[in-house]
Amino acid sequence: MSTFQRIVLASRPKAEVQPENFRLETVDMPVIKDGELLVRNQYLSLDPYMRGRMSESKSYAASQAIDDTMIGGTVGEVVESKNPKFAVGDMVVGTLGWAEMAVSDGSMLRRVDTKQIPASAYLGAVGMPGMTAWYGLNHIMTPKAGETVVVSAASGAVGSVVGQLAKLKGCRVVGIAGGAEKCAYVVDELGFDACVDYKAGNLEADLAAATPDGIDAIFENVGGKVFDAALARTNAFGRIALCGWIAGYNGEATPIDNFRLILINRLTVRGFIVSEQPELWPQGLGELGALVAEGKLKFRESVAEGLASAPEAFIGLLKGRNFGKQLVKLI
Amino acid sequence: MSTFQRIVLASRPKAEVQPENFRLETVDMPVIKDGELLVRNQYLSLDPYMRGRMSESKSYAASQAIDDTMIGGTVGEVVESKNPKFAVGDMVVGTLGWAEMAVSDGSMLRRVDTKQIPASAYLGAVGMPGMTAWYGLNHIMTPKAGETVVVSAASGAVGSVVGQLAKLKGCRVVGIAGGAEKCAYVVDELGFDACVDYKAGNLEADLAAATPDGIDAIFENVGGKVFDAALARTNAFGRIALCGWIAGYNGEATPIDNFRLILINRLTVRGFIVSEQPELWPQGLGELGALVAEGKLKFRESVAEGLASAPEAFIGLLKGRNFGKQLVKLI
Repeated sequence: MSTFQRIVLASRPKAEVQPENFRLETVDMPVIKDGELLVRNQYLSLDPYMRGRMSESKSYAASQAIDDTMIGGTVGEVVESKNPKFAVGDMVVGTLGWAEMAVSDGSMLRRVDTKQIPASAYLGAVGMPGMTAWYGLNHIMTPKAGETVVVSAASGAVGSVVGQLAKLKGCRVVGIAGGAEKCAYVVDELGFDACVDYKAGNLEADLAAATPDGIDAIFENVGGKVFDAALARTNAFGRIALCGWIAGYNGEATPIDNFRLILINRLTVRGFIVSEQPELWPQGLGELGALVAEGKLKFRESVAEGLASAPEAFIGLLKGRNFGKQLVKLI
Repeated sequence: MSTFQRIVLASRPKAEVQPENFRLETVDMPVIKDGELLVRNQYLSLDPYMRGRMSESKSYAASQAIDDTMIGGTVGEVVESKNPKFAVGDMVVGTLGWAEMAVSDGSMLRRVDTKQIPASAYLGAVGMPGMTAWYGLNHIMTPKAGETVVVSAASGAVGSVVGQLAKLKGCRVVGIAGGAEKCAYVVDELGFDACVDYKAGNLEADLAAATPDGIDAIFENVGGKVFDAALARTNAFGRIALCGWIAGYNGEATPIDNFRLILINRLTVRGFIVSEQPELWPQGLGELGALVAEGKLKFRESVAEGLASAPEAFIGLLKGRNFGKQLVKLI
């Protein structure tokens, strides 16, 4: 095998992401230098934040350059090493992008144990999405037992962890998800107290019924009308962790009518990204890993097969077609 | 003098406050009991928060009861006392309402020195409005020297203090106010670096020109389009102290289009009222009083004469007709 495949950003989306925004390329297998190692990626993570990187418009992360390999988290196996810190056979988590193979100097790679925890979990519940949930819940929402917590995109990689961690703290946890199947999963499998199907057409009334004591903390992944409905139910001194705004990622107008409730209810709202406090990652990932190993933190994956399937899987993720953590299995 | 006048809430406003929502009454002079004192109010404070109390709709404060004396801060003189803690002639600040005279047990009154600081200032820069400014600036906005701070309703009782305190911290301070006269005052008298006249019709462009380095912290008194324009200029990790939403006090829709920037710029937004942390008042009032006594904190007052003028003065305040702290002089 003297070549491998990768996907580059071919053009920036005008509004919705299209398959032609990506280009599959075949490139020569690299020769590694001293200090480097070669990784064969097993799983590629697809995450909503990538949509922001594809645009030139202002976002919290720098834009991705045209013709560069698409950014993305990966887990894979070291297949060649000239770096004394890594041996052939090591499993490593990193951000090696939408590519079957990648060269690294090892500085941004983390060796992981895949005996107790499946490799793919390091891209989900025990990876960036899990940390996002853990950070937002513990450092922004800080819910007390008995409080009501609402999580949008509740069946997703982040939302599912938020809700399960909040249940472990003794909160009443209400999810918001799209469709009866996802809602059933959120309640029956993940153990949320209730889940509101925002596609059912009665968002405000259903959310009111599911939150009889109001809402003390929100983990927001969706934005727009879903968020506005939750904002309308907030209690005094509520806390809102603002993590995603997928309703507006294609430039849609997403006006918020209930903004004044932030004043009236003296809410705290914080927009955040998980990379803000890297010093917390060891603690967070340690707790998440232990919960997964003990079976106390469940997750579900949508797995697309083969690198070429990544664009369609990513487009589906932005439309909520995934069910749980969206991955691409490369080998 | 065996009677005095007071103003009660006659009815709740449907949208804009009308004069007939109030009723002027003549009542018998009370006879005080042991432990009580009688105060002749000299100044009555008019503040936007009173609009919220007039409605039955949910606000951060309990509704004011119909037929009760309108709530309001006051400064006045003790004219009779059966309370050992207060002597005739003492000047006292309290919340004795829209009334020429009031009986108190003294528990919520504060004796003040009116030799170095004029009595009316205890309803403004050295009172609740000043504390609101001090708290929002020091405990929510926490600006550093060189940062850009934006304050709406900049010539008002709260905004004028926010801006002057921020200037003392070495910030670039930009006000937003209604009309050229108020803007000139904000820059020429209060020493702000710039002031944008939101009535001039070029709010977004004028604000952009006045904030070439973006906005690091906002003190919001107005809400609606004024706030949306400021939100559009925020820098990463900006802080927003949300103190008032006068644009929506009559039930107007005030959708916020730029909400997603709270995520993108990882902002912190906090709605607050000044009474949340009473333990901070002695420090704050001490600092504000010293600055006023030293002439380092300026303020301007709009003074209506006589209790009967209070309803029109209050209606004018809600429409921005006041210029500086709105007071009613009772004697």
